[in-house]
Amino acid sequence: MNSFGKKLILTTFGESHGKAIGCILDGVPAGLKIDETFIQDELDRRKPGKSNLETGRKEDDKVEILSGIFEGISTGTPIAMVIYNTNQKSKDYTNIKDLFRPGHADYTYWHKYGTRDYRGGGRSSARETAARVAAGAIAKIMLLEFGINIHSGVCEIDSIKAKKYDFDFAKSSKLYALDSDVEEAQEKAILTAKKNHDSVGGMVLAMASGVPIGLGEPLYYKLDAILAEAMMGINAAKAVEIGDGIESSHMRASQNNDAITPNGFASNHSGGILGGISNGDDILVKVYFKPTPSIFQEQDTTDKNNTPAKLNLRGRHDPCVAIRGSVVVSSMLALVIADMLLLNTGSQIEHLKKIYL
Amino acid sequence: MNSFGKKLILTTFGESHGKAIGCILDGVPAGLKIDETFIQDELDRRKPGKSNLETGRKEDDKVEILSGIFEGISTGTPIAMVIYNTNQKSKDYTNIKDLFRPGHADYTYWHKYGTRDYRGGGRSSARETAARVAAGAIAKIMLLEFGINIHSGVCEIDSIKAKKYDFDFAKSSKLYALDSDVEEAQEKAILTAKKNHDSVGGMVLAMASGVPIGLGEPLYYKLDAILAEAMMGINAAKAVEIGDGIESSHMRASQNNDAITPNGFASNHSGGILGGISNGDDILVKVYFKPTPSIFQEQDTTDKNNTPAKLNLRGRHDPCVAIRGSVVVSSMLALVIADMLLLNTGSQIEHLKKIYL
Amino acid sequence: MNSFGKKLILTTFGESHGKAIGCILDGVPAGLKIDETFIQDELDRRKPGKSNLETGRKEDDKVEILSGIFEGISTGTPIAMVIYNTNQKSKDYTNIKDLFRPGHADYTYWHKYGTRDYRGGGRSSARETAARVAAGAIAKIMLLEFGINIHSGVCEIDSIKAKKYDFDFAKSSKLYALDSDVEEAQEKAILTAKKNHDSVGGMVLAMASGVPIGLGEPLYYKLDAILAEAMMGINAAKAVEIGDGIESSHMRASQNNDAITPNGFASNHSGGILGGISNGDDILVKVYFKPTPSIFQEQDTTDKNNTPAKLNLRGRHDPCVAIRGSVVVSSMLALVIADMLLLNTGSQIEHLKKIYL
Amino acid sequence: MNSFGKKLILTTFGESHGKAIGCILDGVPAGLKIDETFIQDELDRRKPGKSNLETGRKEDDKVEILSGIFEGISTGTPIAMVIYNTNQKSKDYTNIKDLFRPGHADYTYWHKYGTRDYRGGGRSSARETAARVAAGAIAKIMLLEFGINIHSGVCEIDSIKAKKYDFDFAKSSKLYALDSDVEEAQEKAILTAKKNHDSVGGMVLAMASGVPIGLGEPLYYKLDAILAEAMMGINAAKAVEIGDGIESSHMRASQNNDAITPNGFASNHSGGILGGISNGDDILVKVYFKPTPSIFQEQDTTDKNNTPAKLNLRGRHDPCVAIRGSVVVSSMLALVIADMLLLNTGSQIEHLKKIYL
Repeated sequence: MNSFGKKLILTTFGESHGKAIGCILDGVPAGLKIDETFIQDELDRRKPGKSNLETGRKEDDKVEILSGIFEGISTGTPIAMVIYNTNQKSKDYTNIKDLFRPGHADYTYWHKYGTRDYRGGGRSSARETAARVAAGAIAKIMLLEFGINIHSGVCEIDSIKAKKYDFDFAKSSKLYALDSDVEEAQEKAILTAKKNHDSVGGMVLAMASGVPIGLGEPLYYKLDAILAEAMMGINAAKAVEIGDGIESSHMRASQNNDAITPNGFASNHSGGILGGISNGDDILVKVYFKPTPSIFQEQDTTDKNNTPAKLNLRGRHDPCVAIRGSVVVSSMLALVIADMLLLNTGSQIEHLKKIYL
Repeated sequence: MNSFGKKLILTTFGESHGKAIGCILDGVPAGLKIDETFIQDELDRRKPGKSNLETGRKEDDKVEILSGIFEGISTGTPIAMVIYNTNQKSKDYTNIKDLFRPGHADYTYWHKYGTRDYRGGGRSSARETAARVAAGAIAKIMLLEFGINIHSGVCEIDSIKAKKYDFDFAKSSKLYALDSDVEEAQEKAILTAKKNHDSVGGMVLAMASGVPIGLGEPLYYKLDAILAEAMMGINAAKAVEIGDGIESSHMRASQNNDAITPNGFASNHSGGILGGISNGDDILVKVYFKPTPSIFQEQDTTDKNNTPAKLNLRGRHDPCVAIRGSVVVSSMLALVIADMLLLNTGSQIEHLKKIYL
Repeated sequence: MNSFGKKLILTTFGESHGKAIGCILDGVPAGLKIDETFIQDELDRRKPGKSNLETGRKEDDKVEILSGIFEGISTGTPIAMVIYNTNQKSKDYTNIKDLFRPGHADYTYWHKYGTRDYRGGGRSSARETAARVAAGAIAKIMLLEFGINIHSGVCEIDSIKAKKYDFDFAKSSKLYALDSDVEEAQEKAILTAKKNHDSVGGMVLAMASGVPIGLGEPLYYKLDAILAEAMMGINAAKAVEIGDGIESSHMRASQNNDAITPNGFASNHSGGILGGISNGDDILVKVYFKPTPSIFQEQDTTDKNNTPAKLNLRGRHDPCVAIRGSVVVSSMLALVIADMLLLNTGSQIEHLKKIYL
Repeated sequence: MNSFGKKLILTTFGESHGKAIGCILDGVPAGLKIDETFIQDELDRRKPGKSNLETGRKEDDKVEILSGIFEGISTGTPIAMVIYNTNQKSKDYTNIKDLFRPGHADYTYWHKYGTRDYRGGGRSSARETAARVAAGAIAKIMLLEFGINIHSGVCEIDSIKAKKYDFDFAKSSKLYALDSDVEEAQEKAILTAKKNHDSVGGMVLAMASGVPIGLGEPLYYKLDAILAEAMMGINAAKAVEIGDGIESSHMRASQNNDAITPNGFASNHSGGILGGISNGDDILVKVYFKPTPSIFQEQDTTDKNNTPAKLNLRGRHDPCVAIRGSVVVSSMLALVIADMLLLNTGSQIEHLKKIYL
């Protein structure tokens, strides 16, 4: 159950403090020029330790491509990528070897698997998302061939919300903030929480522009449903909205319906999706992250024998996962759209005739 | 792409105004006593036309079981169920045959498939959810064998929100309202909108209790991710929250983390899921529905030749889809939990030994 | 696990003596003209009781299409088809209710599921193959749009083997015999076995012509591998060969390699498949059927309590399953090729550009 | 499409002359003691260059485990394994860069993907089967916990057939021969062909003993169907038989039916499978390999511009792929049985109760 997608299939492996993490991306069409620098750039955007807003763990996250690309071109065979772990400090975790960290997956993994890799959460660590970013980079390269662009940025931190969405600004912002006017307040909120040995949550907005009409495979592989799955599956995500989301549920249909004009839709409350299929407008999705559960305040917990205990965490942790999460969200968005692009080829007999006849 | 689930697999078919709708539910273990009356009861809870809060289309929704059950017991073979359409009035749609209804899937289906079943939305109609409810009923029967109960109710309508969650009250409420104190106000909001030829949105809360620890298959078939997919795929759903959802993103970890005690968790901000795996607490999920797009006010649209047109809808429509949606949400929740129950059997070699040795 | 295919997905349901059998065929592209008469014709070719070479059970096998086709054209939504059972005689089986028939699935179903539908094998009956034929007919219609033709015929019965392969003759032959010169001998062999209360085996040859180069998805959805799966999964099949099959294993490479010329291959030992991908030559597959296990001689067996017993079968059975099996083989071949046609669209970025740009 | 299995899922990557080959094995239950030495031993049995009966390419095939195992125990997370290529000689292929080798996949890959990794067949090379063997080793370890043993050996080479099946002898035989009496003749046949710059085919017999009754998931994931898929997908395989296979098709049912006794089946013509489900008897499967297409005789072919050409191969090739193929066959058998073991847990509600209640 470590695979995602139906035609563009990502399978990942690896634990936070194991030898390596990585992935196989299967289904990339042959003939795509792959710029390996771009993949590394994307990984660099996600990698930890770039600023005081992030965990102190420093990983180079150097990606090595093992297969699937020959002379710079995809061959249609699976693309395997590996990132060796270089800066894991398992010792940080020996004192909590038998304790369950509240808000983490320690407790559930122990009960599910009856065994435990206590080193930094093992498989449940957000470290795995590096593999998603590497794969997402290839999806982004592929989408560009079709004029599809993927954007993301941090919209909200600790209830401080962006008033405008400037994806270009977000790119250069230290916290990938969408709104330059609130960036400083958002940064301050993070640092305040950090100082208090606490952490904050946040919200990421992602957008796909240039998406052709028709992507999404009803009824059980709808574009919005799969986006929701992709996003809710990211570590610490607790809510997903498509388009106006909850706001839509507060409106009347006379306000919420997007009128149709010969030039497309007059508004975009829907987030670019109707009936689970892209309608040609920008795809908009919002992902809400809870505050990083790793904090440096003492917490009540139990150990593996169900004995009460006090947890005092050490180690290196992000005070706000939404920042690096922003890169992961855009990667998942790219993977979903690319998968849908591949799946939609069978929707009309005319599509097939263009290829075969 | 009309299948849902990995081990308990629902495949549905049928159009709003076609001959029949129905499903095949594959993967139900053998030896389960199936009470057909309960399946019909569930369908009756979803069926249209029960009150003035719902569409006037009257369908008996009588389910016929074609296979998979022998002498009242499941045989382990696929269970096929069919519901013949009896009260379809295709004529209602002939005048809008070539027009796209805003907020509906007409536009996207036309572009995706190049063909159109204009009769009531065809496949994109919420009528298909009857098949989900029939299948969900069987999942509920199965879950009961393991002490798992599924609940749902309407939490919010037109921004009027329940203050308390009384699932028992919801069962008998005409609008499946969770809170008797706001039920009347919610009903009034619906009728007011209806009178104004408009419609309202709403939010449904669902809960699974008695869920064993360990359900959910990381990293790409996590319980929360699949719940998000299941819920966002329901017609008109625009947002999904797990546990405290967006509220969590506004909290500090010191508030949001659920402390662990020898008797379980001290609070349930997480909605019963950590790391994509059930933690033994109640599973809580919220689904937000947009207002029914079918309204009786004139709307701007285009026809299939991209010519501007005015749309004047007739026919029979729900002024608030959240009500009947509540039954669908609980059905999808049951299907997801049952699927996860089946998948989790392989998590430990010890589980297998209990069966084989 | 009652589904077959990845992009064109067949899901079947139904038991031999239940209410109905049928299927959902999902993934048929929109815009395909579907001639329902052809579907019925194919079913008529498979239906039992057409001659003294077949079981005496008479079933009309009238197919009813419930969804997915609107005004004679596929809509891209799932096509559900149902065939009600009309001539089941469950009484034939009451005397063997607790006995396992040798060579049948009674014993394994009982142990696997712990419950038993004793009526004519229940789900394990070859009656289910009617659903495959109905779906295969639609696949054949689709393939014709691309100039692909599917053929099959009976090659061998009771060791009497065709010397020539005349698919046209096979169509009109009572036993779908490929060789008019041995047809009579083959028929006689069947009738002799029948007279002796016994049954015979046989071999079916199937061919797909006009298949474009490039179908098949290495490495684990190869054309030959999936053909092998499809064919070995047919009731009573015990061996599958691609092209020269076993004969190839007796040759030297200097004989077995098909030389390549500017006009294609100089020979076709490979059966039209290299590396799991179609090479443009005729796809050739052979399927070997064991003799029908149902015979009217007394046989040793046990009952559900593992007590020794004598089995004396009554009822109506085919003395040679290869005849009607020939229609099923061609249906499965059509389904596999159509699935591969749909899957191959993603092999090159250029294919996608033809559709999207 | 580079994944195999439904619950125990193998995904492989890598090309013959790329950086590395490897796999992710997903679905191994937690708590399994994994002996890494055994995995390497299995790889050593498959690795090339062990004798003059095999290709001269010398690869250490040292496996590196990157994830999924912690302190010698499986954790329930995906097990990634990588084997770096060390002895690839891409130069051997530069002179045939634009030529299609008859009997190989060059022609079909070129047409399918429009691009070509000409170095040793790239992805289509049998080198990938090392990944299957590594994964198969883990499956074998798992099966042993349940008393299931996997065996294989070479039955036939160049029409010289074993008269007895001695799996113990096969283990120590240079050519994994099942019959010591014909081993020498088989070896001679290979060397004669090799001397003549030719190659020979062969047949491998594999057996699984100790398999519990009930494995196999009808109707479209039957044990025999999936075995056929698994085996026919191995490089150079052209035919698959279950049990008596073709011989069964020449028998009468009175001979072919296996009588049932209180102690099991009186014979095993069926190869241990009835109705696609294991019956408790030994699972028997035969796989026929064509002669290695790479030979050192001049052959007619074309180049990428469809111009006729003469092909003169150099390089290092197996004169008979069945030998090393024998190890691959046993690996695929192990993977299939282990997958089925995991899938069958859901067949009865009673199975689930043993785990959850």
